[in-house]
Amino acid sequence: MTDTNVQRIALVGIGLIGSSIANAVRKENLAAHIAISTRSETTLARAEVLNLGDSYHAQATDAVKDADIVVISVPLSACEAVAKEISTALKPGAIVTDVSSCKASVIADMGPHIPDGVHFVPGHPIAGTEHSGPDAGFADLFKGRWCILTPPKGTDEKAVEQISELWKEMGSMVEVMEPEHHDQVLAITSHLPHLIAYSIVDTATNLQDDLKQEVIKFSASGFRDFTRIAASDPVMWRDVFMKNRDAVLDILGQFSEDLAALQRAIRRGEADKLEEVFTRTREIRRSVIDFKQD
Amino acid sequence: MTDTNVQRIALVGIGLIGSSIANAVRKENLAAHIAISTRSETTLARAEVLNLGDSYHAQATDAVKDADIVVISVPLSACEAVAKEISTALKPGAIVTDVSSCKASVIADMGPHIPDGVHFVPGHPIAGTEHSGPDAGFADLFKGRWCILTPPKGTDEKAVEQISELWKEMGSMVEVMEPEHHDQVLAITSHLPHLIAYSIVDTATNLQDDLKQEVIKFSASGFRDFTRIAASDPVMWRDVFMKNRDAVLDILGQFSEDLAALQRAIRRGEADKLEEVFTRTREIRRSVIDFKQD
Repeated sequence: MTDTNVQRIALVGIGLIGSSIANAVRKENLAAHIAISTRSETTLARAEVLNLGDSYHAQATDAVKDADIVVISVPLSACEAVAKEISTALKPGAIVTDVSSCKASVIADMGPHIPDGVHFVPGHPIAGTEHSGPDAGFADLFKGRWCILTPPKGTDEKAVEQISELWKEMGSMVEVMEPEHHDQVLAITSHLPHLIAYSIVDTATNLQDDLKQEVIKFSASGFRDFTRIAASDPVMWRDVFMKNRDAVLDILGQFSEDLAALQRAIRRGEADKLEEVFTRTREIRRSVIDFKQD
Repeated sequence: MTDTNVQRIALVGIGLIGSSIANAVRKENLAAHIAISTRSETTLARAEVLNLGDSYHAQATDAVKDADIVVISVPLSACEAVAKEISTALKPGAIVTDVSSCKASVIADMGPHIPDGVHFVPGHPIAGTEHSGPDAGFADLFKGRWCILTPPKGTDEKAVEQISELWKEMGSMVEVMEPEHHDQVLAITSHLPHLIAYSIVDTATNLQDDLKQEVIKFSASGFRDFTRIAASDPVMWRDVFMKNRDAVLDILGQFSEDLAALQRAIRRGEADKLEEVFTRTREIRRSVIDFKQD
């Protein structure tokens, strides 16, 4: 990003996403200085061992001081406190962005603490793995993946453009969206699938021990894919369901109705109905492949 | 399988599983002659183009004539008719096996048509992909995967041993199990996950068009994995839910209760409860990895 001249980028939070950004910024040479901060002493020490940045700070205020861009990659439940904490340390003209999975709540939680003269461009990279922590990050995590930006009305267009460029330089495709619409789409594509995966794996957890062992042994028949999704960061996902409650409950209601209809068809022996559903679901898969999302 | 001296193996049905067996038998040199039969003229012609066997038969009776081993790889709903059809053509001492996903129903459907002097060793390889048809098969599909055999009481032990050897030569690990127990375990590990994947993809299918397009576009956030599972063969899965109805409805009931409990926790804002569930599901993932099933 030679033309935008980012001297200092501050990364507050250095888990899977934060450390992947650190790796990508370093690899693509997108900032002269990477300042890293996280509340956990152990994680900060680990980030230093991994050589993820250029300076390491126990206090977020120290990391964001003089930063051109500040990326907040902390659990949703911590976003408000972090925004409040750093507010007085941000330099005029700085851009604050985040990476969290719910956008309306983040705007409500962080927005009021962003001082005048500082820009706020909320973002959400649609990328991740089931692994957590600073060791899990890698520079190519965002390559070929979407990043959705949800700037509140009136946000400086140049600031949006600069964050958009940052993501593109890290390999992402960028889409700008209304925050509420983002939350609705992600409730369907991400939050509901994770909830269901957690739920089915929990059902298996509650089985008697010998049956549970066999379920693990023969998991390759479908269950295995759900265990991978259900191994995602518990705190992050707890927060998602707290912060995007209405959209999740809405799509969960629709899902439960559809599942009940399939259950009824099984009980009544309605083979044609099942075949019809199982045939039309194949088309969505084709679209996913056509869209190069798998 | 030089010591068992299989002169002729007949493969009735040549979809993903049948064609994978053809490839594996050929690669490992497990039979002198591979006779292939399928009801569909197009599929039979395609199998010949792919050079999957040594002879091709429109009539299953012609394929199984003089065969030492007969592998039935047809949808569950066709198993009874095929068993009836081939019953008079089987040679004394032949072993009939199958590959279907439900075992109690197959024993009820096929068992009565297996003549005296012919052995019946039902089997189920826990392997597959979301692709169907003779082009989808490959020799390594069964490598490192379980195959469960469910011989009815009184089945000749040598016959069980021979089918067990056949699967081991194709790279599988073999487990012998009661048919009803198999159906219960698979209802949890395979049938319920597929039903849920079909259901959530169907929920997306029912969305308004513009929202559906966005769900496909941003599917990498979790939904994508479900579309892969929900692209599996519709006829095969229709039959599974018809044939293993009771076990599926039982575990589906448990799942629905567990999901309702999560829904309630979300609605009431019980963050601790969610975190507790999401933390314990991680342990199952570790067990799956420890068991080398992923």
